Amino acid sequence: MASTTGETLAAAEPIADGRTEEGEEEQVVNPWEVSAKGGKIDYDKLVDRFGCQRLDESLIQRFERITGRRAHVFLRRGLFFAHRDLSDILDAYERGEKFYLYTGRGPSSESLHLGHLVPFMFTKYLQDVFKVPLVIQLTDDEKCMWKGLSVEESERLARENAKDIIACGFDIERTFIFADFSYMSPPIYKNIVRIANCVTGNKIVGIFGLTLEDYGGKFFFPYIQAAPSFPSSFPHIFSDKYSKLRCLIPCAIDQDPYFRMTRDVAPRLSYHKPALIESKFFPALQGESGKMSASDPNSAIYVTDSLKDIKNKVNRYAFSGGQDTIEKQRKFGANLEVDVPVKYLNFFLDDDAELLSIKEKYGSGAMLTGEVKARLIEVLSEIVERHQRARAAVTEEMVDAFMAVRPLPRMFG
Amino acid sequence: MASTTGETLAAAEPIADGRTEEGEEEQVVNPWEVSAKGGKIDYDKLVDRFGCQRLDESLIQRFERITGRRAHVFLRRGLFFAHRDLSDILDAYERGEKFYLYTGRGPSSESLHLGHLVPFMFTKYLQDVFKVPLVIQLTDDEKCMWKGLSVEESERLARENAKDIIACGFDIERTFIFADFSYMSPPIYKNIVRIANCVTGNKIVGIFGLTLEDYGGKFFFPYIQAAPSFPSSFPHIFSDKYSKLRCLIPCAIDQDPYFRMTRDVAPRLSYHKPALIESKFFPALQGESGKMSASDPNSAIYVTDSLKDIKNKVNRYAFSGGQDTIEKQRKFGANLEVDVPVKYLNFFLDDDAELLSIKEKYGSGAMLTGEVKARLIEVLSEIVERHQRARAAVTEEMVDAFMAVRPLPRMFG
Repeated sequence: MASTTGETLAAAEPIADGRTEEGEEEQVVNPWEVSAKGGKIDYDKLVDRFGCQRLDESLIQRFERITGRRAHVFLRRGLFFAHRDLSDILDAYERGEKFYLYTGRGPSSESLHLGHLVPFMFTKYLQDVFKVPLVIQLTDDEKCMWKGLSVEESERLARENAKDIIACGFDIERTFIFADFSYMSPPIYKNIVRIANCVTGNKIVGIFGLTLEDYGGKFFFPYIQAAPSFPSSFPHIFSDKYSKLRCLIPCAIDQDPYFRMTRDVAPRLSYHKPALIESKFFPALQGESGKMSASDPNSAIYVTDSLKDIKNKVNRYAFSGGQDTIEKQRKFGANLEVDVPVKYLNFFLDDDAELLSIKEKYGSGAMLTGEVKARLIEVLSEIVERHQRARAAVTEEMVDAFMAVRPLPRMFG
Repeated sequence: MASTTGETLAAAEPIADGRTEEGEEEQVVNPWEVSAKGGKIDYDKLVDRFGCQRLDESLIQRFERITGRRAHVFLRRGLFFAHRDLSDILDAYERGEKFYLYTGRGPSSESLHLGHLVPFMFTKYLQDVFKVPLVIQLTDDEKCMWKGLSVEESERLARENAKDIIACGFDIERTFIFADFSYMSPPIYKNIVRIANCVTGNKIVGIFGLTLEDYGGKFFFPYIQAAPSFPSSFPHIFSDKYSKLRCLIPCAIDQDPYFRMTRDVAPRLSYHKPALIESKFFPALQGESGKMSASDPNSAIYVTDSLKDIKNKVNRYAFSGGQDTIEKQRKFGANLEVDVPVKYLNFFLDDDAELLSIKEKYGSGAMLTGEVKARLIEVLSEIVERHQRARAAVTEEMVDAFMAVRPLPRMFG
């Protein structure tokens, strides 16, 4: 078993995206491909292969102790399960030092599903807890490079996605949202080139699984996603005083390759290595088999779904661990390990006592699948309705305001 | 012999930089390497291999007829010797259509030699003749990627070089000088990504002879040099009315690979293919063996040279085709084919009658090497002194003014 603290740049080990030494594709996890033999990602193996650290109970307790806040349900129930140097961030915070948050999204589709919202909901929580500035990168250029979208369509999607992100409740006094196409400017470009000068084509190919058949932008994009990890990419926010500010990146673990590369480069450019807090993939309604699929609208709950859609999707598509008949369910109970409604409740039902009670009753047969699904429908409907109300209130002016290149004078206030 | 009108993208033919089919490096000409077996570039072969067109006497006559101006000495004496679609530019000009000029420089050293000035002197002439706008790209980012210069040093050199360029006499009402690090912005970045989406890694490797050992920026830089060929990279200059303006690029032929790539991409982005007018390499004092070497100060006349330096360099280092002794020179005359002073006079002595007279007398033995060198020293001293006076008059404010992102309201005036 590999060390959980050791960290290597993937280029040195071509198996870094989850391919085995024998070249057999046991499981592949990189920013563009998430797949596993048998469908289920082995996160333990992934942590070992990537060389990140498990986010264990003691670290969560320390997080709660230092911040004085209950850990977010995503944290205490294991959705965010791995990290790099989160302890250093907590140490720094304890010493009264500042840091900033960086997260992002590749705007490839108009409507987001709940899995897309996970990093933003969690990042908003972190922003509230730590009272720190946040930069959110919308990689419209990436989607233009990878998905063949036109520049204009990529930009439009970025702006639409920004509305959903804003609807998560970010504090405008601490949050800068930017799209690459509109923010590209000397400060970030200089960092992009500085990073590019530290990473060979071989490393890029090794880390991201590219081939020379790929279009040229793909060889360059990793530097563009790396650059916001360094505060000097945002001189309008971070004055010289904050030029070496630490950075904490909440993201799904498929983004780890970008930041493994960034962490390798950081000391050579006299920056702190960005710290990471990494999530699993939110399960599809059909069960755990990597990421939800944008091409199958019934694989996920979308933030644009009506209450009727939610009810229909949960009842028809959410994979049940319950028994086929009421009689058998009463007798044997449900298999909670594979039950998707329970997995979803695990991440969205904040009430620990109620969740425990549902699990006990459902697992023992005292509760039926229909009852659990009904509760999940209530929970999801509330989240989606709240999001829809918030999003409807997001005006074009608010988008402009969040995306304005401006100082954030009260970012640590 | 290959067609002089045919044009292929180099990736399709890995021999495009001058390597022969057998892989033997007969001569290599690309933006970073100029070398030939025996030292002398075979420009005829280069034109055939690159698939550009010879700039023949009839085209020069047409140029003079249409513009009503005497062809520049660099043109009528064959320094600019090849082109792509120059006829289309002349056709368009004859129809009263507009175009713009684009040239550039990689600012790798502080002081320029005469060879560096050649494209600028010629571009200034073209600007005067056609009364068209001009964009000049200083690729400070390239030098940071290739030469390992820091961002700051590259930027400093770009600004210093801008002063020498301005000293060539460009019209500030028609000229925009920009350095990549400071100009990088959404309009040009969007074009860079659009171009990147048309060219695979394989093509870049094929055209520019890169390997995956190279740092990642090198795979991306070609798009950055390509983008100014499209007017939408400069919305502050070219309004929608000029969004499809033709572009003419004066450059040395080693830059051809960039624009071969650009010409391949242009129609796919609904732009005209940029036209080119391409020069030979200015010969070193020691004779024709590709480019002059920045590492050998005695291989070239620098614009910072004193009159004493010029005298010393010409007398000591300029390779002479004259005979060893006065007696032999009187008897046999000089070999003009290899004589560097004559080559230099060919490009810098505007007076056709005097040049002819020198060649006749020197070739027949009536003139001695010392006399020819003395005349060359006069000619070069005048050019260098004039440049030094002009450069001394270039203020920081003038640099700022030329580099300001601004409209050019009288660019066609």
